[in-house]
Amino acid sequence: MTVRNIVLFLAFDGTAYHGWQVQPNAPTVQQTVQDALERALGERPALIGCSRTDAGVHAREFVCNFRTESRIPCEGLLKSLNTFLPNDVSVLRCFRVPDDFHARYSAAGKEYCYELYTSPARDPFLHNRALHYPYPLDAEKTDTAARLFCGTHDFKAFRASGANPNGRGTVRTITTCRCERIGSRVVFTVAADGFLYNMVRIIVGTLLYVAQGKIAPASLPALIDGGNRVCGGPTVPACGLYLNRVFYDKPFGGAGL
Amino acid sequence: MTVRNIVLFLAFDGTAYHGWQVQPNAPTVQQTVQDALERALGERPALIGCSRTDAGVHAREFVCNFRTESRIPCEGLLKSLNTFLPNDVSVLRCFRVPDDFHARYSAAGKEYCYELYTSPARDPFLHNRALHYPYPLDAEKTDTAARLFCGTHDFKAFRASGANPNGRGTVRTITTCRCERIGSRVVFTVAADGFLYNMVRIIVGTLLYVAQGKIAPASLPALIDGGNRVCGGPTVPACGLYLNRVFYDKPFGGAGL
Repeated sequence: MTVRNIVLFLAFDGTAYHGWQVQPNAPTVQQTVQDALERALGERPALIGCSRTDAGVHAREFVCNFRTESRIPCEGLLKSLNTFLPNDVSVLRCFRVPDDFHARYSAAGKEYCYELYTSPARDPFLHNRALHYPYPLDAEKTDTAARLFCGTHDFKAFRASGANPNGRGTVRTITTCRCERIGSRVVFTVAADGFLYNMVRIIVGTLLYVAQGKIAPASLPALIDGGNRVCGGPTVPACGLYLNRVFYDKPFGGAGL
Repeated sequence: MTVRNIVLFLAFDGTAYHGWQVQPNAPTVQQTVQDALERALGERPALIGCSRTDAGVHAREFVCNFRTESRIPCEGLLKSLNTFLPNDVSVLRCFRVPDDFHARYSAAGKEYCYELYTSPARDPFLHNRALHYPYPLDAEKTDTAARLFCGTHDFKAFRASGANPNGRGTVRTITTCRCERIGSRVVFTVAADGFLYNMVRIIVGTLLYVAQGKIAPASLPALIDGGNRVCGGPTVPACGLYLNRVFYDKPFGGAGL
């Protein structure tokens, strides 16, 4: 039997989930997709995700892969999975990839967005989808400060204090860090070759402190490289965070594979 | 005691509600706002809405008013109401209006939007917020057809077949009817001096029939004036419908009133 390596691009509203990774006694996206795969394929393959995500975090494009001997065509599998999945999880694309593709280890980087809105009143349509931040925010000034995060730094100061260190250390390269008004929202976009635990949410919390005048923009470079978590801003709530896309070195289109 | 006439501008996600108007044994927006008013004011004033809305229909700006002897400042009332209201209903603005203002009878017109999206896969972030219509749709051609609805017509053909006639008859004047792509969505906008029951949803269903080639654009004018409900398209689902704004003849700003 031929074993095929299949990739799924998912979008999900993370509000109802305790993140991606399966855990006992709590609904997770991984388990939800595995349940749907089991119904579609009659088997329950191991499902490799591009990253863990926290409870309440959303994804516009989350990548995962699995191996199967099933001969079901990818187009049929996509339709079948979307039939079995709940409305807050959707398969956007599904295709075969080379045997060595690994959703997590093959990833060269990721892009996250953090979204908030500043109107005085709550917006019913943004509940659990963006942070309600009813204060003045100069997006242009904040953008200038955001760009100071770009480059290769030891981001130890932007990691949840209780986080376990892993083998990769705490040096990362941020390729994009910006802040802009898009319609009624303020959107922070951060892309990097990797992220420490809570890194985006602490960067945004720190930039909000800059916007509030609690941290001087001029002191940001020293703060970034100082490695001291307590010097930064707070960790902003999960509801505004979106995994936007995952970068892979080799472009893979799916056609003909 | 001075009785003040107070207007509230609301936004609500209608998913969980059986429309605006209070009914037994079903949650409605009117009842929800009255409950919040009772907690904020210690009384339960009659609340006049600008229109009934159907179950599942949303509002970006719904106008209602009530009379009270309470001397609570409007700014404090707004904050207090938003504290007591659930996350799917929000008070955007609150101010005093002239005694003769009536949210429904003073309204000179309304604007609705109907939103759908055409991507093949479901979008978790648009569930209950837009119709999933995974078919080709030429928004430009549909827009050309939509404009044929503008003007004063007897819209009898665009009224739910079981609807009770009221004293006002079935002639209405549509001032705006258009279709455009906005980001990932296709948005129909319809403004008129008044609407028959389900009128927007039947107009959109009819325009989708035009888009599908089931109704020739050239036959639309005769269909519009023919007065026969069965000649039109289906009534599209409520989830894509938004009350966008309400027009009043006299501008009223709230400042100083």
